[in-house]
Amino acid sequence: MDVRTGLPVVGMVGAGQLARMTHQASIALGLSLRVLATSRDDAAALVAADVTVGDHRSYDTLLAFAEGCDVLTFDHEHVPGDLLSELVSSGVVVLPGPDALLHAQDKQVLRERLSALGFAVPRWSVVTTAQDVVGFADGTWPVVAKAVRGGYDGRGVWFLADAEQARELFDARQAAARVVTGAHLIVEERVPLVRELSAVIARSPYGQVATWPVVETVQRDGICVEVLAPAPGVGADTAIAAQHLAIRIAQAFDVVGVLAVELFDTGRELLVNELAMRPHNSGHWTIEGSRTSQFEQHLRAVLDYPLGATAPTAPAIAMANVLGGPDGATGIDGRLHHLLALDPGIKVHLYGKSSRPGRKIGHVTVAGTDVVALRDRATRAASFLSTGKELAE
Amino acid sequence: MDVRTGLPVVGMVGAGQLARMTHQASIALGLSLRVLATSRDDAAALVAADVTVGDHRSYDTLLAFAEGCDVLTFDHEHVPGDLLSELVSSGVVVLPGPDALLHAQDKQVLRERLSALGFAVPRWSVVTTAQDVVGFADGTWPVVAKAVRGGYDGRGVWFLADAEQARELFDARQAAARVVTGAHLIVEERVPLVRELSAVIARSPYGQVATWPVVETVQRDGICVEVLAPAPGVGADTAIAAQHLAIRIAQAFDVVGVLAVELFDTGRELLVNELAMRPHNSGHWTIEGSRTSQFEQHLRAVLDYPLGATAPTAPAIAMANVLGGPDGATGIDGRLHHLLALDPGIKVHLYGKSSRPGRKIGHVTVAGTDVVALRDRATRAASFLSTGKELAE
Repeated sequence: MDVRTGLPVVGMVGAGQLARMTHQASIALGLSLRVLATSRDDAAALVAADVTVGDHRSYDTLLAFAEGCDVLTFDHEHVPGDLLSELVSSGVVVLPGPDALLHAQDKQVLRERLSALGFAVPRWSVVTTAQDVVGFADGTWPVVAKAVRGGYDGRGVWFLADAEQARELFDARQAAARVVTGAHLIVEERVPLVRELSAVIARSPYGQVATWPVVETVQRDGICVEVLAPAPGVGADTAIAAQHLAIRIAQAFDVVGVLAVELFDTGRELLVNELAMRPHNSGHWTIEGSRTSQFEQHLRAVLDYPLGATAPTAPAIAMANVLGGPDGATGIDGRLHHLLALDPGIKVHLYGKSSRPGRKIGHVTVAGTDVVALRDRATRAASFLSTGKELAE
Repeated sequence: MDVRTGLPVVGMVGAGQLARMTHQASIALGLSLRVLATSRDDAAALVAADVTVGDHRSYDTLLAFAEGCDVLTFDHEHVPGDLLSELVSSGVVVLPGPDALLHAQDKQVLRERLSALGFAVPRWSVVTTAQDVVGFADGTWPVVAKAVRGGYDGRGVWFLADAEQARELFDARQAAARVVTGAHLIVEERVPLVRELSAVIARSPYGQVATWPVVETVQRDGICVEVLAPAPGVGADTAIAAQHLAIRIAQAFDVVGVLAVELFDTGRELLVNELAMRPHNSGHWTIEGSRTSQFEQHLRAVLDYPLGATAPTAPAIAMANVLGGPDGATGIDGRLHHLLALDPGIKVHLYGKSSRPGRKIGHVTVAGTDVVALRDRATRAASFLSTGKELAE
């Protein structure tokens, strides 16, 4: 409880763009997000009043950070589960809880639990040698190798075209001495998919659930680059099935907060790919597109407030990520200036991050009726902010 | 320019709720608002990363605060104009400029200039004695006395029912030794009005103008308590006339940023009451109700960025202010919790302010189609947050 305001204190571990946008949402609720940053220059640390710089892998740091917080929640999945369990034992309210969060931290545990519960997942296996991969592929290439822990935005994922590439991957990991406990690999069939979908919902400790329309996510080089809401060309049956699937997973794992379920749509069935238990890139469109954004909803959920209405504010929304361009952040002010003139309806979100090529430094959202036109506008705007160049017609 | 982000720095003098909500909007644009607060507990100081505590009536404080800012703008009108002119002479970019801002600071100057330019205002006169008021009234009471400078939210405004009340006012001011230069009074006819309107627009240094729909403002005890957007029962001709009037005033006074023009609608004509050159209570509904909020638009305007689209996100919006109740801020968390259950579609904005009875501590907004129903929901929600009691049906 913040004695100055009579309102609760939410502590978020991590201070990236998700914490930055959660801080924005917290302001409306009378709060001021407390963030645990790795650096003063983290996206959320640049804009929040209550910033601690410290190591999220240190129990003492986490315990000191949690002091005075009504609830501890997350911008990322990188806090070791044993530290979280210790915090819970010490009386800290951690949401989502460590037992739930494990399913977003460990790809092997996730697949084992999902399979046991009867959810469809791609065919997969644990592998410890290149020969295991060759055996799994059984002549059908490519296959996808994934680090069980720690991967994101395309890191920790390798598409293997043949046995030779499998051997190269294992040789490289051996050389880098990365074959340590918890960092082993799984291998998965490459699913022939029609599209990737994401079902984003929120769940409170009380068990209340709120859903947003299921969206299509477009990936490039393993990074989400566009989100279309609602997912075009997806029938009501499939969309509802995806939402139900997300709700059942949230209930099965006792998730509290926002849950994003990444799905492969094969045209015949929905396979679960990954989970995230925090605001997710596939829900950024809700800032403009829904009466309650995923960031406000996550706060409401972890505070056990009743969840907000998720009615759409427009028939269709397109979101595109702004990736760091070749020139880094140099000239971003001028590019922003021009973009706002090119398209006065574009909503820009910049994260204040120094730009490395390929890094997510912002996103743009545009609302309207025709998803094809919206997608074109969003893609052009994001590309212009990245490179300063207009896309050819 | 913030070297960490490559984006400009906006300094806002004042750290009340307007700065708080401007900070929220600044985050999306990649910025972090720098605020000059009177206290660490000011509404914006609780949530912003870059806070200076200091006196906005001190030239040295203002100059130091402006150092490193690309532009200086305002949460209130209380900075003396001569200090602002000195800042401009020192090379600080101040927007709106002191010559424009004077019209929002001095009611006498405003009326003189509006009359000279041919804008309709209520009949008025400068008064220095109770006898002046009696002479102005000429037997027609009540009249309205106003302090030329420094009034807001009903302060500095007196409704005088007769000569006796005029004498009491002057006696009280004499006793309080408030009859000092610049704090003298004007008196105005009490206009028989159908409704009060507000035309909120934004203007950039380049001269670009953007408008929002004209709204109705409902006052109680001199404080704005509700805003209905667009103004119900106002014909298109009147609405457009109000917008044109605001644009002509912005051009005449060279206003940069958001301009709110408060208007009396007599049913026959529109009379100008007050101006504000900053985000204004009558524009809070734009956070949810418009593709570009007044807070983002103010930032875009003072940065000379192109202005954003102001398309509505719903056919009708109602906003109600949350005023501090008899119990102060005690129990606000519980009241918020209950309110969110009572009406999941309500959007709440709490300012983190300690509650004094009658003080604006937040507002609520609700979007939909039927303005009568929306107004009822907004009023009930605001009243519940104030008092913890549900209004009778």
